[in-house]
Amino acid sequence: MTITYHDLAGADERLRFSPYCWRVRLALAHKGLVADALPWRFTDKEAIAFSGQERVPVLVDGRHVVADSFEIARYLDSAYPDRPGLFGGPQAEAQAGFLRFWCEQALQPALVRLVIPYVHACIAERDRAYFRASREARFGRPLEQIAVAPADGIAELRRTLLPLRATLERQPWLAGSAPAFVDYMVFGHFQFVRLVTPFEVVEPTDPVHAWQERLLDAYDGLARSAWRVPAACEAPA
Amino acid sequence: MTITYHDLAGADERLRFSPYCWRVRLALAHKGLVADALPWRFTDKEAIAFSGQERVPVLVDGRHVVADSFEIARYLDSAYPDRPGLFGGPQAEAQAGFLRFWCEQALQPALVRLVIPYVHACIAERDRAYFRASREARFGRPLEQIAVAPADGIAELRRTLLPLRATLERQPWLAGSAPAFVDYMVFGHFQFVRLVTPFEVVEPTDPVHAWQERLLDAYDGLARSAWRVPAACEAPA
Repeated sequence: MTITYHDLAGADERLRFSPYCWRVRLALAHKGLVADALPWRFTDKEAIAFSGQERVPVLVDGRHVVADSFEIARYLDSAYPDRPGLFGGPQAEAQAGFLRFWCEQALQPALVRLVIPYVHACIAERDRAYFRASREARFGRPLEQIAVAPADGIAELRRTLLPLRATLERQPWLAGSAPAFVDYMVFGHFQFVRLVTPFEVVEPTDPVHAWQERLLDAYDGLARSAWRVPAACEAPA
Repeated sequence: MTITYHDLAGADERLRFSPYCWRVRLALAHKGLVADALPWRFTDKEAIAFSGQERVPVLVDGRHVVADSFEIARYLDSAYPDRPGLFGGPQAEAQAGFLRFWCEQALQPALVRLVIPYVHACIAERDRAYFRASREARFGRPLEQIAVAPADGIAELRRTLLPLRATLERQPWLAGSAPAFVDYMVFGHFQFVRLVTPFEVVEPTDPVHAWQERLLDAYDGLARSAWRVPAACEAPA
């Protein structure tokens, strides 16, 4: 039976930009599992109503339905224990909890204001009103006032990345000597920025950059070969 | 042979306030090892010159000399493998690297400006000129201008704690079902604030507070029974 998951897509169906869906894509590659990534838009709430919630990724594997990228990784390890593990034991899995929330509460907030106009520009026409209304409600101001100047946004993001940089100065992967789910979790956010904006958010000399390059190359260039919006492929302004 | 370590002390020798030395104290308790914590002041550089560097903690166990709290924890696990582990395997140990640098690059910077006048007030007289000069060099301004208003400092600290709070809402310890070195690493910073200031930096309803209380009680109240400066025992202003 084929594994499927609903995967956030842009106006161009080839654009798959959700950081949380990228975690799942790389987790499946890590485990050597093949899956169909079904394109899904923000307003396709009906299509995932069977999961009992409104967000992607949602993974379906036979009779198993799992929402939330972290829960999906846990599911994949328990359902496919003979394949390479995404977590290195119960303590490593628990500790990944902190990195998960660092991504959600520090990293994503630091980049969302940089990225928001680019996201709005590349999502499906039918998603735009929803996207605008939900983000304006979250930030309490018009979309145009949520965005920050790129230089300010990049400077704030780089401050947020200090612990990541210090870690990757001393070890090749967050998981140690080989990449694992903690790496995919954090990388998903960089891939998100890379697919929709022209910004180089880390300097080429930054160890975060080298780590990012290694993840772009992993699994036969799975992340590097992903379709980017044309504006993201241009040199930064 | 008795294990010893040099432990930062205040004007009153009972005050042992270094977050990094608290990690070692709890790590030793975790492993059921007894050690002598030798009082040391900032200016006692000669006393630890044998370690080839200038900071505490420095642990001496027979012919082994280990500086840096993280390296000390790694040493204790390798030297005493039959006692409870401080890390849960190689991946958990690698992942602890990120938490280590989150403490150094996000948590400690968020609290140091809140705590700095209290530290200056409770250190040994002979340390004050050194402390002032080194901190003024680091921040590029007079000590009196490094400190922030408590309300601002606590607000910034609470923002920094968002990932910690979200994690501890879902699990009792950063290491999962039982405390381990990652918990002691982060807790050391809270203990530092608690020993020298009167501030309650987290609300009583915060899961970080409950976790902190459990760590204060651990090992027969080792952290709770530590001597605090009298001003830290008063109600916040």
